[in-house]
Order: sequence, then C-alpha cells, then structure tokens
Amino acid sequence: MLYIVGLGLGDAKDITVKGLEVIRKSEKVYLEAYTSILTVGKEALEEFYGKQLILADRDMVEQHADVILDNAKNCDVSFLVVGDPFGATTHTDLLLRARQAEIPYNVIHNASIMNAVGCCGLQLYSFGETVSIVFWTDDWKPDSFYDKILANTTRGLHTHCLLDIKVKEQSIENLMRGKKIYEPPRYMSAAQAARQLLEIIQKKRVEGCEDTELAYTEKSVCVGLARVGSDDQRIVATTLQKMTTTDLGPPLHSLVIAGHLHPLEVEMLTLFTDDLTLFENVVLL
Amino acid sequence: MLYIVGLGLGDAKDITVKGLEVIRKSEKVYLEAYTSILTVGKEALEEFYGKQLILADRDMVEQHADVILDNAKNCDVSFLVVGDPFGATTHTDLLLRARQAEIPYNVIHNASIMNAVGCCGLQLYSFGETVSIVFWTDDWKPDSFYDKILANTTRGLHTHCLLDIKVKEQSIENLMRGKKIYEPPRYMSAAQAARQLLEIIQKKRVEGCEDTELAYTEKSVCVGLARVGSDDQRIVATTLQKMTTTDLGPPLHSLVIAGHLHPLEVEMLTLFTDDLTLFENVVLL
Repeated sequence: MLYIVGLGLGDAKDITVKGLEVIRKSEKVYLEAYTSILTVGKEALEEFYGKQLILADRDMVEQHADVILDNAKNCDVSFLVVGDPFGATTHTDLLLRARQAEIPYNVIHNASIMNAVGCCGLQLYSFGETVSIVFWTDDWKPDSFYDKILANTTRGLHTHCLLDIKVKEQSIENLMRGKKIYEPPRYMSAAQAARQLLEIIQKKRVEGCEDTELAYTEKSVCVGLARVGSDDQRIVATTLQKMTTTDLGPPLHSLVIAGHLHPLEVEMLTLFTDDLTLFENVVLL
Repeated sequence: MLYIVGLGLGDAKDITVKGLEVIRKSEKVYLEAYTSILTVGKEALEEFYGKQLILADRDMVEQHADVILDNAKNCDVSFLVVGDPFGATTHTDLLLRARQAEIPYNVIHNASIMNAVGCCGLQLYSFGETVSIVFWTDDWKPDSFYDKILANTTRGLHTHCLLDIKVKEQSIENLMRGKKIYEPPRYMSAAQAARQLLEIIQKKRVEGCEDTELAYTEKSVCVGLARVGSDDQRIVATTLQKMTTTDLGPPLHSLVIAGHLHPLEVEMLTLFTDDLTLFENVVLL
C-alpha cells in the first residue's frame, strides 16, 4: 500500500494520529523535499516518528517513481508531503502512476497553507484564484499573475500569493556543464514579493494605466504571513509599500492582497497591525 | 489559555498529535456542533481522547461565549472544530472576544474541505471564489451564488460549492410559538445541489439567456465528493444532469463545477467516472 501523508505546516507534532500510525508501520518512508519545508529538519522528524526517512528530491520523484512504487507493491510505503498531499501537482502524478500499476493507495490529509491562510482573519470564502509569484532575474520578469490579481480585486476578492521556493536548483553555468552542483535553497520573502508586485504597477503606469485601473497600488492593504502553524508564526497587515521593508523572519512566507473587507475581517486584521490609518480607504462589504 | 483545535475531516484519529496533547491537558473541552460533522459521533471522540466533551451548539457559542472564555482565564480550555478552525466566521468571533478579554489563545490547524477538495484531482490553484448553496423552500430560492459561478467559469476556474447544513433549526411554527423544539438535522446532498443549480438555468433560459451565456449547462462536468478523508469517501465525476440522480450516500457532501481542465486533471477525474464521453466537450488548458 502507498500512503501519501500530509505533515501539516509547523513541526513534527502537526502530523495526524492516523498519519503517525501509518508511518510507524511502513517499511519505507520517503520525505518529499522540494515543494515546501517544515520549520524543523529531517532529524527532528526522524526522532519523533522513530523511523529513518529517505529524502526524495525532485530528481528522485520524477525519475525514480518506479522504485518508490515497486516497494509499495509488496509492503507499506509512506510518502510524506509538507502541508496537504494535494497542494502540488507532483503528488497527483505519483498517485496516478500508482493507480496505473494497480497499487492500492491511501491519502492522509492535513492542513495546507491554502486553508491555514485563514488565520489572518480574511475569510476563505472571499478569496479568488490563487497565484504564484516566481523569483525574477535581470532579464526574466514574468508577470502573468497580475491579470489574475486584477480579476480578483475587480470582484472585491482577496488574492493569496504563493511565493517561490528554489531548492536544489543549478546555476545556468553548472547546468550547461552538466555539473550537479546545487545553489543554496532560496525562499521568497513577503517583502521581495511586494517589491516585484510594485515594480509591475510602475510599468503599467508608464504604459498609461491610471491608478484606478490598477489591480492594487502602494497603498493597498496586504497581509504577510510567516511560518504559519509554528510557535513563532508571524502575521503583519500593512500597505504593499510598507511590506517591501517588513522583515517577517525565516521562511516560509505567504502574501495576501486584500479585496473588499467585511467589518469582522477589519477587526481581525487590526490584531496584526500598528498602523491605525491602514483601513481608512478600504471598501467595506 | 484558549485552544481552538481543528479535528480534520474523517474520524477521531484525524486530529494532530499536537491537538490531542492539548485536549488531554485541558480542563474543559467544548465540541462545536453546528457548522459541520465528523463521520463519527461524540462518544467515539470522547473514548479516543479520554475526555468528556461539552457539546457547544449555536446558542451556546453565540450567547454563552463568556462562560467558555471565563474558564480559559484560569485554566486550559479547548474548543474543537471539525475541519480547520478558520472555516467558519463564528470561530473568528470567539478568537476576537478572547483577545478583547486578554485571554491568550492558540490555534491548531488541520485539514479542511477547503483544501482537501483537491483529492478529486482538480488543482486548488485553479479554483475561483467558493460559493455556498442553501436549501430552497417553496417561496425562498436565493441564487446570488449563480453570478459568482459565472464569474469563475468565464475565467475557466473551478467552483467549489459548499452545501447547506441545518442543525438544531426550528420550524417557523415552533419559532413563532417560542418553542425550543428542533427539526432533525439536514445535510444537502450533491444531487439536490445539482437540481437547484439546474433550476436556476431553466429560469435564465426563460428570461432569454442563450446556453453559451450560461455559467453551466446540464452537460457541464462536475464532481461530487462525500465523506472526504474517511474510509468510505466517495468521489464521482459526471455531468450536472446525471449528478441530480447520483446517490453518494451519507453526508457531508461537496460539489465542484469544473472550469477549463488541465490534461492531468482530466486523467485524475477519469479515476472517478465510468462515463468515457464525459470529457468530449471540455475546454483543455
């Protein structure tokens, strides 16, 4: 049996009781290690689970899924995923391959940033399409997510921005030379995301866009979330301009651009800001 | 300390290890009992947790929140919520009151249908605004969610429909007489939701709407989900027309109206249908 087990968001104890039982009875336990991270390392998980974990990086899962699945034919195998198993496409792919090979599988759900983002007080029902913001380089600055944010804010909806993670990436030089030397992991901060977002509207203005036509401006209310679900979780509500210089500490970060606000949402966000003028210009529901 | 603890979706063992520890050390443990249900009853939870649970219905939470909070001033109190604590506004309200009374609180996240719905294979990133479908009566048929679905499908996005739950509701007669006699609980099925959805487009057609202008038609692909996260979870992908006569068994149900589909999404949905013609007319991403 193949078990795909969500680990939740904070530390080792965020696993469910059901998930822990499954890990402890599994003969092999893989830890997915490239779409997200917990606030604790592999060793802390191994100690708590009482099991050795096999790190499954992108190469392994994409190229050696057969090995993982072959094991699951004859014994219990767990594949551990930070958050919930259905946050990333890769796990769907593993599940489809299991089904093709007629290997029974079972999914153990857990919290994901996709629902836990609600802890900032913005109602999940009022979110539009989620967007992903990737690291820009000097000559590669994709901004296709801007139109999605615009479509959301036009409807008064909040936008959850998932921020880029670069794990086990090769420099272009090493890639060209075929050298498997990896860059240190990088995680986009809410501040950096805010800077990229503001750079986009600068460009729109140069192209002739009026401020009233923009998806957001420097004054828009946004919420930065860091290490959601852990003991040192941090949430800050402020303007996009101020977010560019707000340090939320270590990863992972998320950023939400607020749409229209319900008075209860304003009340909740007030817990996370010291800027009492923040809500002066927001549209209330 | 007030702990607001998510229980996840299936049975007693879907609680996190952290959540279980919190419950076991709490002096009082309340079980929220009106926005959702687990597939097991209060007794099964009490046995597994080794704690007596106090059922907290809508009356109690809205009118006697002070009692819950007063207890939390001097000792550890847990307030248990099916799914994740931030699925419903009421829990936000409790948290705000705790903050006002300067009572420290802590939130233990868990899976919610808002993220676990991804188990049907539709990518969470491709969902638009979530809508709620309420039980219609003969003379009260609200359909304001239709425009939201239209806005989603116009953008090719999926729509997650949360289905109505009526727990501890009074009949109008008993309400008028001030009698606290409650109707048996009712949970909307995916079939009933599909019937209401199709009634709306019948009305739109009478009003002159062309099929190409509708948010969906009888042939639209939809996915019914029942008891997500439990051992007898059921997922069926079919047309909205066929969903009206599809019995998914006991509650809770959810319904998703598909937008444009990624080939990987089609492949996943194929696991949940015996209708091979289902995807003939869908727009692929």
